[in-house]
Amino acid sequence: MVTGLANKILRVDLSNSRVWTEEQNELFYRRYLGGAGILSYYLLKELKPRVDALSPENILVFAPGPVTGTAMPGASRLCVGAKSPLSGGIAKCEAGGHFGYELKRAGFDALVIQGKADHPVYLWVHDGEVEIRDASKLWGQTVVEVQDAIEAELGEKRLRTATIGPAGENLAAISCIMTDLRNAAARGGLGAVMGSKNLKCVAVKGKTIPQPADPEKYRDMARWMNTHYMNFPVAARFHALGTGADMVGGNAIGNLPVLNWSGGQFDDVAKIDAAALQDSYRVAMEACPACQIRCKKVVELENDSYKVDRRNGGPEYETLAVFGSFMGINDLAAICRANELCGLNSLDTISTGGTIAFAMECFEKGILTREDTGGIDLRFGDADAMLKLIELIAHREGIGDILADGSRKAAQRIGRGAEELSMQVKGVEFGMHDPRLKQGLGLIYSVAANGADHMTGMHDTLFAQEGRGMEAARSLGSLDPLPANDLSTAKVDRVKNQHLSRNFADSLVTCHFAPWTLRQQVDMLRALTGWDYTDFEALRQGERVATMARVFNLREGLTAADDQLPKRFFSPTPGGALKGTAIDPEAMNRAKRTFYTLMGWDPITGVPTQEKLEELGIAWAVPETIPA
Amino acid sequence: MVTGLANKILRVDLSNSRVWTEEQNELFYRRYLGGAGILSYYLLKELKPRVDALSPENILVFAPGPVTGTAMPGASRLCVGAKSPLSGGIAKCEAGGHFGYELKRAGFDALVIQGKADHPVYLWVHDGEVEIRDASKLWGQTVVEVQDAIEAELGEKRLRTATIGPAGENLAAISCIMTDLRNAAARGGLGAVMGSKNLKCVAVKGKTIPQPADPEKYRDMARWMNTHYMNFPVAARFHALGTGADMVGGNAIGNLPVLNWSGGQFDDVAKIDAAALQDSYRVAMEACPACQIRCKKVVELENDSYKVDRRNGGPEYETLAVFGSFMGINDLAAICRANELCGLNSLDTISTGGTIAFAMECFEKGILTREDTGGIDLRFGDADAMLKLIELIAHREGIGDILADGSRKAAQRIGRGAEELSMQVKGVEFGMHDPRLKQGLGLIYSVAANGADHMTGMHDTLFAQEGRGMEAARSLGSLDPLPANDLSTAKVDRVKNQHLSRNFADSLVTCHFAPWTLRQQVDMLRALTGWDYTDFEALRQGERVATMARVFNLREGLTAADDQLPKRFFSPTPGGALKGTAIDPEAMNRAKRTFYTLMGWDPITGVPTQEKLEELGIAWAVPETIPA
Repeated sequence: MVTGLANKILRVDLSNSRVWTEEQNELFYRRYLGGAGILSYYLLKELKPRVDALSPENILVFAPGPVTGTAMPGASRLCVGAKSPLSGGIAKCEAGGHFGYELKRAGFDALVIQGKADHPVYLWVHDGEVEIRDASKLWGQTVVEVQDAIEAELGEKRLRTATIGPAGENLAAISCIMTDLRNAAARGGLGAVMGSKNLKCVAVKGKTIPQPADPEKYRDMARWMNTHYMNFPVAARFHALGTGADMVGGNAIGNLPVLNWSGGQFDDVAKIDAAALQDSYRVAMEACPACQIRCKKVVELENDSYKVDRRNGGPEYETLAVFGSFMGINDLAAICRANELCGLNSLDTISTGGTIAFAMECFEKGILTREDTGGIDLRFGDADAMLKLIELIAHREGIGDILADGSRKAAQRIGRGAEELSMQVKGVEFGMHDPRLKQGLGLIYSVAANGADHMTGMHDTLFAQEGRGMEAARSLGSLDPLPANDLSTAKVDRVKNQHLSRNFADSLVTCHFAPWTLRQQVDMLRALTGWDYTDFEALRQGERVATMARVFNLREGLTAADDQLPKRFFSPTPGGALKGTAIDPEAMNRAKRTFYTLMGWDPITGVPTQEKLEELGIAWAVPETIPA
Repeated sequence: MVTGLANKILRVDLSNSRVWTEEQNELFYRRYLGGAGILSYYLLKELKPRVDALSPENILVFAPGPVTGTAMPGASRLCVGAKSPLSGGIAKCEAGGHFGYELKRAGFDALVIQGKADHPVYLWVHDGEVEIRDASKLWGQTVVEVQDAIEAELGEKRLRTATIGPAGENLAAISCIMTDLRNAAARGGLGAVMGSKNLKCVAVKGKTIPQPADPEKYRDMARWMNTHYMNFPVAARFHALGTGADMVGGNAIGNLPVLNWSGGQFDDVAKIDAAALQDSYRVAMEACPACQIRCKKVVELENDSYKVDRRNGGPEYETLAVFGSFMGINDLAAICRANELCGLNSLDTISTGGTIAFAMECFEKGILTREDTGGIDLRFGDADAMLKLIELIAHREGIGDILADGSRKAAQRIGRGAEELSMQVKGVEFGMHDPRLKQGLGLIYSVAANGADHMTGMHDTLFAQEGRGMEAARSLGSLDPLPANDLSTAKVDRVKNQHLSRNFADSLVTCHFAPWTLRQQVDMLRALTGWDYTDFEALRQGERVATMARVFNLREGLTAADDQLPKRFFSPTPGGALKGTAIDPEAMNRAKRTFYTLMGWDPITGVPTQEKLEELGIAWAVPETIPA
């Protein structure tokens, strides 16, 4: 029994409608914590190597963390994961909203789902109970329709849900799972995994509040953040504008991606950023439970062309950029509609936008023709084409069927040189931060187990000069400011430790937007559990999670060759701030070798050494099929 | 400027009587902290490779830590070090008493001494000032005589001193530096380094109290320890009896060394332990500044054979054992006298006792004869012979001249198979804890840069079952109890992290007897400096210090071959608890390779990899002469 936790893991096998709970001992929780740690544990422990990600054998894990469900700012997210149909390796994402909070309060530290129902179902989890219920009538519906239908059926209000729309049902490898309609467990195709199980929705309600070992200290911490967050410029900015507040600045320094990473700057950036949204369609800001930062935009609009409902939230920076500068679109209303369409259908906005931009570039270059697109003039800058493509992808119609599995697979099918235009690592499209500018982030894009995800890397520009970023870096033992494009060993060490710190936070689970220091996050866990937990343990937990994910990928057949950025990043952009700035391939190769070495992995193959596995207590996780 | 520090380092060049102060920036202190960190920095930065340890070029460093000089229990020690005349590598020791506390209050974070005076001198350091004063009349005096003479000369009382007696003057490689008469910077021959510089004493007085960044938190921590220490069994035991309270138990499990590590048990153990001392000659317990634990025994006695003055303190466990069971002596008065003689003459009790026991075994085996010993019947159990030998060693007379440089060098000179009886690593005799029982400690004895010192290792028996020891291990990421004789990778990881934790504490500088957790030590530093310092940084600091010491040894010519336990430990003892228990040489070799690997050193040569050096920010410290 660990104080502050539910001490129960809910297991569901949809193939035989079996439901049971599992109790793990205290050292299990100290070793794996929750979130990404528990996800990796179950994938390695119970998933047979090399099963098809869309087969019933795949395991889908919803894992809040120890602190989830408590009244702590930044503690309401959860980790969702499975074997990824997009990368073939691990899919691991964090999502905000109320779902994780509610799942923990329903009495569970995690929900682990295997098998496949013989007809569409949904799960109804409430206060320690679970029911598998028929969802045949819900199949084909959007996430909003599902929410309304289930609330009506159960006679409940304010249900917290994790749902797929048509894209998930249609097994699009770029589909996601939507929590509470407007938050996404976005990357790696988890919507398709849920769809492959005939699972439309998990609805949750709970009211058991976890009690910390040191309630006073815990409450003091929450109160401290709620009264101090406005002192942190980053939190104040999230509070005022949400993400995307500094797109103009990002454009000026070369961070903003333009035209499938082929452009250098976007002159209309001020028309599509969070400030423009505030001045136009933004009607509210909303929050996850217990968080005063309230970073989540809510938009509502109706004009001649588009209508967007406020129930679907609003676009984050990634979405503004990918449906904006990334495809040369400056129509903010269209971008908001794209965001809504992705949400309703359960599509990852980054991979969907990334794949559409890829298709647009193919079209511009004559690799795709109107014949391929079903007559759509698929050019950069065409908002209608973009919106049409989203619908086609969600329903796997026409060109949408080819694009629904992401740009890598689409390029393989299209051929004719399309591969060079597919901008992804391990099949997963990039976050909207240019690795030519932030080269340490570029390293993480390369080596992170879940592909070109920006969430387990940090932004080199924050650590290039003195300031709060450097203070955080110092706490990780990295003392001197380093240029954003530096790839020295000292830089690799820094981004590695930041990567581990993020992997720890994803096990806790805490939000990267609440400006908790590493130390404070550890203090939270200490006050919650009563453990004498240290920052050292935290980083080791991050190392364990990153290494488990690496082991998972290796056994699924990925190799060091998959830790590779697309060619384009090794050339400068034609204009803008990065004109003349590219990644030196030799420097990046050296940095990768250094990263492997510092992780205790083989410097060439990136396979964790036996010593490292035993040090982390995860030698059990390695099957014999992985080369030493 | 770092809050809580003196922000000044005092430099003295005795060759030209030059005195100056040095100011380092904040990142210097964050990177090296103090104590062992500052010691390693100056040795690597300023000492030319391969100079004779007894030449004027050697650098002698007295370094308190950041927390030294404050009213914090367990924060009054200091680190003293130089190139060791005993090992040829680094000598690094911590000593208690008031000297470090006073040096910091005199306005200095460290005192770095180079050169050689052309006649005997002492330093008088007081409130930011320093004088080099004549000590010709003090040469040849004992540490007590020196104290009295200097106090008289300066008209001061309660001077805090670091002094050598005759053994240091006579350049005995097993001589030490005595602080405040009764505490020793014992290991590695630092007394000889001081003697080689014609430096008899450093006398200090200061009254500037360092002010913490968060005085209230700092005061609260001190108050907490002062009111709670008796709740910790280990601290309560130190309070009641000091070290050596559990020698009977140690004998029962095989920890107590007997007859130069050749015996298995000592039947008279209850006659020589701390309880026996309490019942006989102990007249008081004393403390370092600000510490309520008061672990330091004070003895006073006069019987037909011996007289011991209370000014010389009393024997610690190591001294009780090495002059007791280790040479088969059960006469507690004689042991107390041996302790006093070592103190007065500035001899390391462990290496002195170890070398005498070695000589006794040589004598028993016929390798040494009466002719060699000048007629002394040098047999195990003979207290008079033991006391006579201490005097001969201190004055380098007769057989004492051969033994004054420790058992390794003595064995080389004696030949005739004596080498096999020389029980040391890197020339430094063992702490009194049997590595056949505590095999993780055995690994640290092997690989620690300063030889078979027990202070940077921990006791495997504390972590073989649940309890406070395991809680500490968990904070270092090591979750399961492991047998004392285990040498698995998990065990190596644990002892490595404990080693790093100790190296951090030796930079802070904190006492291992005050039951501060790692977390609390970091909290102290945070409250003192205002840094957002983490446990992660702390362990990295430990890693930096251990690796810098490794680099120092490598450039001085030591290699992995020097990380070797004597043969004797690979055979069981003839009786006692370890009858039938030995170290498996293959397992120990594997453990060493694993230790190197986990440290980021080459698994065969133990040379730190370039990546590790750059990660730790100490690539500057490596001369070209070290093989890659």
